[in-house]
Amino acid sequence: MKIGIPLERRPGEARVASTPEVVRKLVTKGLEVWVEEGAGVRAGYPDADYAEAGASLGARETVYDADLVLKVRRPEPDEVELMRRGARYLGFLESCGEDALLAAMQARELLLFPLERMPRTSRAQSMDALSSQSSIAGYRATLEAASRYGRFFPMMMTSAGSAKPARVVVLGAGVAGLQAIATARRLGADVHAYDVRPETHEQIRSLGARPIELDLGESGAGEGGYARELSDEAKARQQAALADELARAQVIITTAQIPCRQAPVLIPEAVVERMRPGSVIVDLAAASGGNCPLTVADEVVERHGVTLVGLTNYPALLAADASAFYARNLANLLELMIETGASGPQLRAPADDEITAAMVARAD
Amino acid sequence: MKIGIPLERRPGEARVASTPEVVRKLVTKGLEVWVEEGAGVRAGYPDADYAEAGASLGARETVYDADLVLKVRRPEPDEVELMRRGARYLGFLESCGEDALLAAMQARELLLFPLERMPRTSRAQSMDALSSQSSIAGYRATLEAASRYGRFFPMMMTSAGSAKPARVVVLGAGVAGLQAIATARRLGADVHAYDVRPETHEQIRSLGARPIELDLGESGAGEGGYARELSDEAKARQQAALADELARAQVIITTAQIPCRQAPVLIPEAVVERMRPGSVIVDLAAASGGNCPLTVADEVVERHGVTLVGLTNYPALLAADASAFYARNLANLLELMIETGASGPQLRAPADDEITAAMVARAD
Repeated sequence: MKIGIPLERRPGEARVASTPEVVRKLVTKGLEVWVEEGAGVRAGYPDADYAEAGASLGARETVYDADLVLKVRRPEPDEVELMRRGARYLGFLESCGEDALLAAMQARELLLFPLERMPRTSRAQSMDALSSQSSIAGYRATLEAASRYGRFFPMMMTSAGSAKPARVVVLGAGVAGLQAIATARRLGADVHAYDVRPETHEQIRSLGARPIELDLGESGAGEGGYARELSDEAKARQQAALADELARAQVIITTAQIPCRQAPVLIPEAVVERMRPGSVIVDLAAASGGNCPLTVADEVVERHGVTLVGLTNYPALLAADASAFYARNLANLLELMIETGASGPQLRAPADDEITAAMVARAD
Repeated sequence: MKIGIPLERRPGEARVASTPEVVRKLVTKGLEVWVEEGAGVRAGYPDADYAEAGASLGARETVYDADLVLKVRRPEPDEVELMRRGARYLGFLESCGEDALLAAMQARELLLFPLERMPRTSRAQSMDALSSQSSIAGYRATLEAASRYGRFFPMMMTSAGSAKPARVVVLGAGVAGLQAIATARRLGADVHAYDVRPETHEQIRSLGARPIELDLGESGAGEGGYARELSDEAKARQQAALADELARAQVIITTAQIPCRQAPVLIPEAVVERMRPGSVIVDLAAASGGNCPLTVADEVVERHGVTLVGLTNYPALLAADASAFYARNLANLLELMIETGASGPQLRAPADDEITAAMVARAD
């Protein structure tokens, strides 16, 4: 059974879907692994290391001609045409409905395992690439914020006076947000975090940050789950209270994204105008429009004296570890998909496991 | 008495010699403060804040025409020609012998207070800009290292396996080196540090890092201060032992500089060749030739799979705090230089204080 690992061709992408460490394990199981020449170089994994791990190196045509293709980013339609009829695709699909890629995949009758469809169960956690890559994004985005900010993150006491810790606000306490909180705390910042889900507050506190609780005034203290029962007046008060918290921040790291939908606006222009000049906003939702409407995807811009960082691929900036985690996620998924019998490795039907059953898709 | 604060014109310079906070204090003492328009903008201090603090804003000609000029970087000769005859210059001079700048300064009969000449006494510590800026460089250079490195600095434990902490070696435990150690430790790296002075080892340990002690073998255990009495054989053994430590590092931050001299080579090319691909060297001695001969000043290059960062002005990348600390250093120095009598502020003779006496220089 042949596995192909192509070079990623999206601009700025530096990751690779598997590493020499993981390739060695696959080869040990009796799998034939082909890696495209140069596929791991930008992530710090030279061709020689794959060869040493037992992989064969080949051209693009050779690696796509496999039973399973392991990818990070969605391939180009012309790459899909190199794939075997009925082969399996494991990787992000980044598709929001019909498009040329899906048509090409349909024509090849591929069996798709889009990593976006990984169930969010504890059993699937070790295969959850969305989660591993988000964690890396949260760490790297915080380094970006610290590097772009003209002041210290930690408190500094020197003989020429002291510097207060930076006031950092993290919006969204999902995987990326929690890692951003942890990293900013490591660097000694004064971290505040907001998430609509009250159950995140304990996690935020356990990382040494303060959960932002918005004062809704008396009218917000109604019966029932308050988030659902807010009056328009209370909502407006909530927005105003959040705006006040954001305007006081020196650094905002914002992480609110909804798959295949425009990101919600959490930082309106009026808030940016109120921020102190020299402040920094790192907008992890830049690719889907941004949590701040002033963010420009893939650019760093200055508006009202505030630096807005719109980078869209933080994992590619930490490509060695991002690839290592991704490769392990895929290896764990492959465990469910391949059984090794007396006659060598065999593909299991997707229906044989609840995780592969939940993920599998055809392009039609 | 008039103080002038010009805009810094060196390429890439973003600092300013005084901040609104310090200007306010100077104005309160009865000094007339002129700030060049836009001088603080890149450091996050808008003109309006200086005006609000009591400064006047003016053109270059106006701010140089003052009793005291506060600068960060050495001025251009044509700027010196705008200065009053016999005026005082407070700032870095960055001069290594005769040059066009010194000739221009001599022609204006300036009284120079080059900050490089600040005595290294505890009384002078609050005026030591070399030290405050080195500390900022150490912090910011470490963020640069973490951002350029393709892996995590901290240990990471995830459901898809773990990542070991980065092995960081800091060369030189002066002000910059100690701050680099502290910052890399904050980020969770496994930090090792080398300095020829054994008295630094305790400081290194107190920051949670391991001092690198080189095994000199039996012949190194001779009588007397061993650093001075090393045989050629022991020296070679010492270099080989350091090379082994460096080759195992994933990140090296190197800080060994000697004023007006070529930086010592601590990381020969052979060591870079032995480092793991994807490793990072941040060379703070880049401006004076680098501690690694492969470093290119003001550039980021890759050699033998290793990224070499040759940036030469880290304080300018943290311009807001760098300027704030610098401005306070200068304010403390001004305290020694100006006395406020009944008839307003008066300049004291440099000889009146041991610090100004030690610093003062004429260009001749």
